[in-house]
Amino acid sequence: MDVAAVAATAPDAPLEKTTIRRRDTGPGDVLIEIEYAGICHSDIHHVRGEWGQTAYPVAPGHEIVGIVQEVGSEVTRHAVGDRVGVGCLVGACHECSSCIAGQEQECERGAIATYGSPLPEGDPEGPVTNGGYSTHIVVEEPMVVSVPDGLDPASAAPLLCAGITMFSPLRQWNVGPGTKVAVLGMGGLGHVGVKLAVAMGAEVTVLSQTTSKRDDSLRYGAVEHYATAGEEGKATLRGLRGTFDVILNTVSANLPMDRFLALLKPRGALVNIGIPTEPMSVRAGSVAAGRKILTGSMIGGIPETQEMLDFCAEHGITAEIELISADTINEAYDRVVRSDVHYRFVIDAKTF
Amino acid sequence: MDVAAVAATAPDAPLEKTTIRRRDTGPGDVLIEIEYAGICHSDIHHVRGEWGQTAYPVAPGHEIVGIVQEVGSEVTRHAVGDRVGVGCLVGACHECSSCIAGQEQECERGAIATYGSPLPEGDPEGPVTNGGYSTHIVVEEPMVVSVPDGLDPASAAPLLCAGITMFSPLRQWNVGPGTKVAVLGMGGLGHVGVKLAVAMGAEVTVLSQTTSKRDDSLRYGAVEHYATAGEEGKATLRGLRGTFDVILNTVSANLPMDRFLALLKPRGALVNIGIPTEPMSVRAGSVAAGRKILTGSMIGGIPETQEMLDFCAEHGITAEIELISADTINEAYDRVVRSDVHYRFVIDAKTF
Repeated sequence: MDVAAVAATAPDAPLEKTTIRRRDTGPGDVLIEIEYAGICHSDIHHVRGEWGQTAYPVAPGHEIVGIVQEVGSEVTRHAVGDRVGVGCLVGACHECSSCIAGQEQECERGAIATYGSPLPEGDPEGPVTNGGYSTHIVVEEPMVVSVPDGLDPASAAPLLCAGITMFSPLRQWNVGPGTKVAVLGMGGLGHVGVKLAVAMGAEVTVLSQTTSKRDDSLRYGAVEHYATAGEEGKATLRGLRGTFDVILNTVSANLPMDRFLALLKPRGALVNIGIPTEPMSVRAGSVAAGRKILTGSMIGGIPETQEMLDFCAEHGITAEIELISADTINEAYDRVVRSDVHYRFVIDAKTF
Repeated sequence: MDVAAVAATAPDAPLEKTTIRRRDTGPGDVLIEIEYAGICHSDIHHVRGEWGQTAYPVAPGHEIVGIVQEVGSEVTRHAVGDRVGVGCLVGACHECSSCIAGQEQECERGAIATYGSPLPEGDPEGPVTNGGYSTHIVVEEPMVVSVPDGLDPASAAPLLCAGITMFSPLRQWNVGPGTKVAVLGMGGLGHVGVKLAVAMGAEVTVLSQTTSKRDDSLRYGAVEHYATAGEEGKATLRGLRGTFDVILNTVSANLPMDRFLALLKPRGALVNIGIPTEPMSVRAGSVAAGRKILTGSMIGGIPETQEMLDFCAEHGITAEIELISADTINEAYDRVVRSDVHYRFVIDAKTF
């Protein structure tokens, strides 16, 4: 069926209202009437062609919450009327060792991204997948998660990307009571990371360019929020050497890695979530002394996404959002680029 | 007492025979008559002032095997006549959390290196510690390990540094049956690493500039030895993408990290043992995709050094050495710098 959407047509053109085609609901598919779609910075990178070749037109959006409108004959986990979510992936092989381990994002045959993934020639949905900036989407059952009743659907939408992106490395590096966590950057990812790490029982410190969001950090449960810019920031960082078990770096700019690795305890881990375009410069001694770990993380698998949503429902965690209508997506993009958002835009899908 | 030694007097002068002072054996000390002292590349960096300020004169050497000649009244673990070893450290606080965890190399008050560590003013042993290029050494009991009977003492000497340096990260990253390990560089460290990883049950591949040491690699139990230099080497590395659980990098030159991180499986670890002077360049995506780990390692603690020696005795592992007399240390240094040694020089301490 043809559905209303907002799509990009060129790297430098504003997004515009259009119509896209969704496939018929197959035996293993779930047709979702979208309620809310979050805006992720990745959407902007993609539609502006900043992460390589983009195929136009494309409707972005991979933070999707909606209501099941129809299910295929083989679908058992979701029923018409259920509230469900879809994140960054809409397909995987489900047979390789990564998929079997619940790490569909590392599917050895290549996972299908929610938008921008090439489709087989002649596919009814077009040359590439289209994402959540639309009224409806058809997704194979294994990639659809349940949104628990307790969660506000609009502010739960960003959890489908920002939430799992922060939750998964926190779990991987065993964050819990007794661990000290630093979150670098207090934006869409960072503020969710603070809430999650606090709920896991960790002692959380925010390291941000300035103290402008200090009140928010403390309200979300951080024990401290330090500014890192300038000479004063450098002195602050010197005083924090050897403090943290885990650092989640959400900043996509190129930070001085040696200075932040020095903040780790021996055997601590610095996890890069942001992906700067330029290579990082790292002294071998910064990881060798104390056997520190420099690593990274990208989203997470479907079972863990469900676990994250259940955890958020249990602990009352959602993103802080500004709900917008589809008419203001282009202005919202400009504000995201300026970091002028507290902390995530979510589009009301009724306005597409 | 005054004992014969070989010491460096300036960064650019040859080492020369001299006399150094050892303290009287205190209640907690062990006096060791040195039998063998290995030559480590670190000795050369230190005496040539390549790792910062060096205090001269200094006798290097931190791969020491010898016989206990005298013990203090409080010593219980070693007795006169025992064969013992001393590695890179001769002192630690034994009270901090790192020491209590058996990680004396990370002693929070600063471990005392076997040579070149500043001593308190007026210390009878001089302004800095002196190492194993001498006939005798006095070391506090906790830093002295037992050399099991089964090990040839001369070829066991390099295990005190090269052995623990490779053993510790192999243990830390859970190498054993079913894991695939690559060893980068086939020198003093690398050849011991191959033997250890093979004995732990891993499938080991050597990646070296050329195939000149291929026969040795296979003899020590590696399943393959590939050359990495040139266009052919690049093609080989492309074919090995996603292969290894653990890579131990013993090369001190600055390698293209992204190319070697690509050889890891998801969640695999690349451990830098060599410490290049220039910073490494690493793309954030090289660790984020597959959550790969870039880390490093330096030596290891005393309990694990003992465990390593016992493991080596059990599995018949020693270093491949060329035994030399003290008269040829300077020539040996030049050969180490040229990588012209299979695989480690050991000095016969009777010749000091």
